[in-house]
Amino acid sequence: MQIKRIAIVENGKKYFIKDTNISLNVSEGEIPRTKMKEDLVETTKGNFIHLYDANFKDNFQNIQKPAAIINPKDAGMIVAYTGMTKDFVVIDAGAGSGALACMLASLCKKVYSYDINEKHVLAVNENIKNLDLKNITCELKDIYTLDPEERVDLMTIDVPEPENVLETAKKGLKAGGYLVLYTPQINQAQKVIEKLDNNFHCETTLEIIKRDWEIDDKKLRPSHNMLGHTAFLTFIRFYPKLNDVKISKKVTNARKDARLERAKHKKTISEKEKGNMISDF
Amino acid sequence: MQIKRIAIVENGKKYFIKDTNISLNVSEGEIPRTKMKEDLVETTKGNFIHLYDANFKDNFQNIQKPAAIINPKDAGMIVAYTGMTKDFVVIDAGAGSGALACMLASLCKKVYSYDINEKHVLAVNENIKNLDLKNITCELKDIYTLDPEERVDLMTIDVPEPENVLETAKKGLKAGGYLVLYTPQINQAQKVIEKLDNNFHCETTLEIIKRDWEIDDKKLRPSHNMLGHTAFLTFIRFYPKLNDVKISKKVTNARKDARLERAKHKKTISEKEKGNMISDF
Amino acid sequence: MQIKRIAIVENGKKYFIKDTNISLNVSEGEIPRTKMKEDLVETTKGNFIHLYDANFKDNFQNIQKPAAIINPKDAGMIVAYTGMTKDFVVIDAGAGSGALACMLASLCKKVYSYDINEKHVLAVNENIKNLDLKNITCELKDIYTLDPEERVDLMTIDVPEPENVLETAKKGLKAGGYLVLYTPQINQAQKVIEKLDNNFHCETTLEIIKRDWEIDDKKLRPSHNMLGHTAFLTFIRFYPKLNDVKISKKVTNARKDARLERAKHKKTISEKEKGNMISDF
Amino acid sequence: MQIKRIAIVENGKKYFIKDTNISLNVSEGEIPRTKMKEDLVETTKGNFIHLYDANFKDNFQNIQKPAAIINPKDAGMIVAYTGMTKDFVVIDAGAGSGALACMLASLCKKVYSYDINEKHVLAVNENIKNLDLKNITCELKDIYTLDPEERVDLMTIDVPEPENVLETAKKGLKAGGYLVLYTPQINQAQKVIEKLDNNFHCETTLEIIKRDWEIDDKKLRPSHNMLGHTAFLTFIRFYPKLNDVKISKKVTNARKDARLERAKHKKTISEKEKGNMISDF
Repeated sequence: MQIKRIAIVENGKKYFIKDTNISLNVSEGEIPRTKMKEDLVETTKGNFIHLYDANFKDNFQNIQKPAAIINPKDAGMIVAYTGMTKDFVVIDAGAGSGALACMLASLCKKVYSYDINEKHVLAVNENIKNLDLKNITCELKDIYTLDPEERVDLMTIDVPEPENVLETAKKGLKAGGYLVLYTPQINQAQKVIEKLDNNFHCETTLEIIKRDWEIDDKKLRPSHNMLGHTAFLTFIRFYPKLNDVKISKKVTNARKDARLERAKHKKTISEKEKGNMISDF
Repeated sequence: MQIKRIAIVENGKKYFIKDTNISLNVSEGEIPRTKMKEDLVETTKGNFIHLYDANFKDNFQNIQKPAAIINPKDAGMIVAYTGMTKDFVVIDAGAGSGALACMLASLCKKVYSYDINEKHVLAVNENIKNLDLKNITCELKDIYTLDPEERVDLMTIDVPEPENVLETAKKGLKAGGYLVLYTPQINQAQKVIEKLDNNFHCETTLEIIKRDWEIDDKKLRPSHNMLGHTAFLTFIRFYPKLNDVKISKKVTNARKDARLERAKHKKTISEKEKGNMISDF
Repeated sequence: MQIKRIAIVENGKKYFIKDTNISLNVSEGEIPRTKMKEDLVETTKGNFIHLYDANFKDNFQNIQKPAAIINPKDAGMIVAYTGMTKDFVVIDAGAGSGALACMLASLCKKVYSYDINEKHVLAVNENIKNLDLKNITCELKDIYTLDPEERVDLMTIDVPEPENVLETAKKGLKAGGYLVLYTPQINQAQKVIEKLDNNFHCETTLEIIKRDWEIDDKKLRPSHNMLGHTAFLTFIRFYPKLNDVKISKKVTNARKDARLERAKHKKTISEKEKGNMISDF
Repeated sequence: MQIKRIAIVENGKKYFIKDTNISLNVSEGEIPRTKMKEDLVETTKGNFIHLYDANFKDNFQNIQKPAAIINPKDAGMIVAYTGMTKDFVVIDAGAGSGALACMLASLCKKVYSYDINEKHVLAVNENIKNLDLKNITCELKDIYTLDPEERVDLMTIDVPEPENVLETAKKGLKAGGYLVLYTPQINQAQKVIEKLDNNFHCETTLEIIKRDWEIDDKKLRPSHNMLGHTAFLTFIRFYPKLNDVKISKKVTNARKDARLERAKHKKTISEKEKGNMISDF
C-alpha cells in the first residue's frame, strides 16, 4: 500500500501515512482524518505537525526487496548516459526486485520487465501496484529466448550470462538503441564484448563509485564507511548491419572517450565538432 | 538545428543529417532526399547505408557549450537520488550551457532555468530550440533574489555562493522537495551546511567517480585516462517548520546512510522497515 | 614480548610462539622445546608441523594500539614519495601507537618519536621493545615547541593543528628534507598550506585509496567492503631561504605534477629532463 | 652521473650539480668550485644561492627509463604491506628500468634483479651506478627458470605471465616470505590465483588509487588530472608444506581482511588478538 502523506513534527520526527481516511494517533497527539489534507495541524495535545504529499522517493524507499536493488548511482548513470527521455520504451531483465524497472517507468513511456524467478515477478508486481505505476509490466519470461513485443530504445540486463541476450537484443532494439549490462563481475562484461559482432558498438564498460563526505563545523572529510562495489556497467549501442561480421579487434572506446570527455570538461566544443556532418565512429 | 537522421555505412562510418529535404552526398555515393525515411538505402555508387532516427542523446552531444557541462555521472545521480519522475517541476540555476536543465526537461514536466550571464541564457535558449524541448524556459535572472513562479519538486544549483539560495529555496520548494548543490569546491558545500536551519535536512554530500575500463581479448583493466573530479553533490531536503531554529549540530547523515545502504545491498529490508509507520529522522 | 617462531600445521592452522624455551602443546600434539629450531617437526601425535622465524610483519600485527594506527597504504606512500633510504633520520609526532614510527625505524637509521599523551608514550615504548628496535626513542614532548636534537631528513606529523609545527620544522629539517602531514580533515591541510612561507614548497596533498578485489574461479570483482577514508597526506619540502617571504599564491603543484606523472607513466623521460642542469621549480 | 648538490636561488629556481669540481655559471652569477660545499654563497653578481646535498629522491627522479617505472603509491604499498625491513633480501623480476629494484635496495640489505631484455639490464646497471647503490645486481636471466642464489624475504614480479614464477618462488622464498605480483591486467592476477597450491596463501589482490588535491585560498578540491590505473598488486605468502595439494577454493581473504582492517581503524585490538598464541588462518 502506497504512502500518501508524510507528517513531520517540529523536532523532525516523521510519520508515513498510508491511509488518509483514518486519524493519526501518535505520541504527539491525534490528527483527525478530516484534517489529513491540511498543511499544518495542531494535534489534540497542542503540538504542531506538518503534513505533505509523499513523493515517488518516499514510496520507493519502502518497496519489497527479495533481491538486492540497484544503487541510485548506477540507475542514474544508465538514465543519463543513454539519453533517456519521457518517450523511451524499455525492456528490463532480470527484474529482481524491480527497483530499476520501476525507477525507469517513473521517467519513461513504457517498461517491459522480465524475470525467471516467480517470487521476483510477484514482488515486482506488488511494487508496481504500491508505486502506482501504470506503464510497466512484469512477466515470468526468459530474456535469453524472449520474443520482444516491440522494438525498444533501451534494454537493461542484469542476468548471470548476459552474452546470451545478444540475439534478443537484435530482435528487440531500435537502430541506435542501447543495450546496458549490469554485471557484478568484470569477466561477465568481457565475455559479452568478445561475442559482439558488427551490429553492436561497445562504447564503454565503467564503474560508478560513490564517496560520501562527513561535514560539520569540525569535520570535512570522506566517510569511513563506503560501499566498495556494486557492479560494472557496459554500454553497447545497436547499429544494425546487412551482413553480420565478427569484430576482430573487440576493444572498447573508453580511452578515446575519456580523452574527449576530459577535453570537453575544460573547454567548449571545437568548431569541427559543431559542423553539419560528423563521423565520430 | 536538430539532427534528424543518422546514416551508418556498413564499415561503421556515421553521418549526421540535419535536413532530410536535401540529398546526402558523401564519398560512399548519394542518397536522394526521397529515400531519407527508409531504413536501408543503396547509394548511387552501390554502397549500402543504414538510416535511423537520431535520438535525444545524438542531439545532446552537439549542444552549444559556452560553459563546462555537467557530466552524465552527476546528472544521473541527481535524477536517481531525488526520485525524479515525469511529474517533477524543477528550477535550475546557474544554467551555464543548459545541459543539466535540458537533460532534466527531457525527463520531467517543466524546468525553469536561470542564469545571470546573458551569453549563457542565449546559448541555453538555442540548445532548447535545437533539442526541440517545449517544457523549459531560460531567463536572465539572479537565483539569489528570485521570486519563484511556483513551488517546485527540485532545485538544482550551480552558482559560486550556494549559501545565498537558501531564502529562495524556502520560497520555491514544495514540502519534501530537494535542493541539490553542484559545487566544485568542498568548502562551498560546507558553507551551505553551516547556514542550514531546521527547515532543511542535509542528507549527504558526495562525489561520484567514474572509472572506465579497457577490455578486449588482451586487456582487462581500468583506463589510464581518468577525470579526477567534476564537483561535489549536496542533497538537502526541505521540510518547512513553524519556527526557524538554527541547527547546532550541522552534521550530514552520510555515516548512517552509508551503513544502511551497505546493509540494503546485502539483504532484503528488515521487517521493521516494512512497517506501516516509520520514523527514520 | 616478541613472536620468535611461527608453527604451521599442514592444514594451514598457525601458532605464534613467543618463548622457544618451552614446548608447544596444541591439539595436533606436542613439539618439545629441543626441536623449536627445526624446520619440520613430527608431533607426539604424529602430525607434521612446519616452523619458521617470525618476521617484522608477524610482530607488527600484534603491537599495542591505544590509538588508531596508520594504514600500510599511507605509511608506504610516505616512504616511497619522500625517497626514504636506510640513511634517513626521522622525527615523528604525535606518535599515537607508534606504528608509523616503528615501521620507519625498521627501514631507516634513526627515529625520534614524540607524543603529548603519556599513555601513548608508554605504549610506543612497549612496542619498540617487543619489535626489538634499537634505533628509535619515544618521549613525552610537544612537537609545537620542540627543540630538535638534530636536523632530520623527514618529519611525519599527525597532530590536530599541524600549522603549529612549521617553526619546529624550520629548526629540525635539513635543506631538501620533507615535512609530511597526516590529516584526517582536508581543511587541516588547507590551514597549513595557507601559512607556508617561501622556505617551504608544498608539492601535493593527496589521498591514497585502496580497493581490495575478490578473486576465485567465480568471482572477479572489487570487494564490497571498503575503508572509505583514512587521512590526507601533504608533502612539503623545505628549502631554507635568507629572507622569509609570505607566498602570495599558495597553490600546490598537483596539477603540473599529475600531468608529468601521466606522461612519465607512458614514455621514457625526455632528453631535456636528462640534461645536466635542470630547473623544475 | 649522480647529482651531488642542489643550488636554489632566493626566488625558488633550482640547479642540479653533478660535478662539484667545476664552478657553476648561471644567469644569477658564478659560484666558484671552492665554495661548492658551503650552505649559502653570494655569486659574482651579488645574488645569494643556497646549496645543499642532493638526496636519493633528487637522483631517483633522473634515472633512465627505457620502460614505464613503478609509481610511488605502488612501490610504497609493497614495502609497507610486506613489512620490509633493512634486513630484507629481495628478488625483483622483470626489472624494467629498475626503479622498484633500486628503491627497494635503498631500504633493504640486498636486491637481486633480473630481466630478459638486454636493453633493460644495461639501463638498470647504469641507474645502479648513478644512484651509488652497492647492494643490488641486475642480470640477464629468466625468472621462469631461475635457480635462486639464496632464499629471500620478498619476490617482486612484473612479468607478462606471473603464473610461471610459482616454481621459482618455491625454490627462492623463505618460509613466511612474500611473493608480490604487479599486473596491469586483473586476469593476470586471476590466472596465478587459480594455479596456487597449498604452499601459498593469497592474502589479497588490490589497487592503490592516488587522488591529488588542489588547494589554495580559493581552491579546495581534487585535481581534474588523474592517473586512472597503473597495476593490480597481489600479495601471496609462502608457507611450505610437506605435501603439495591443489586448493579447491581459491578465494582471497580480501573480504575478511577488509572487515578486520575497518575494525582496527576504529578501535584498539581486542584482547583475544593480544593473546599469546593465535591462529588466524
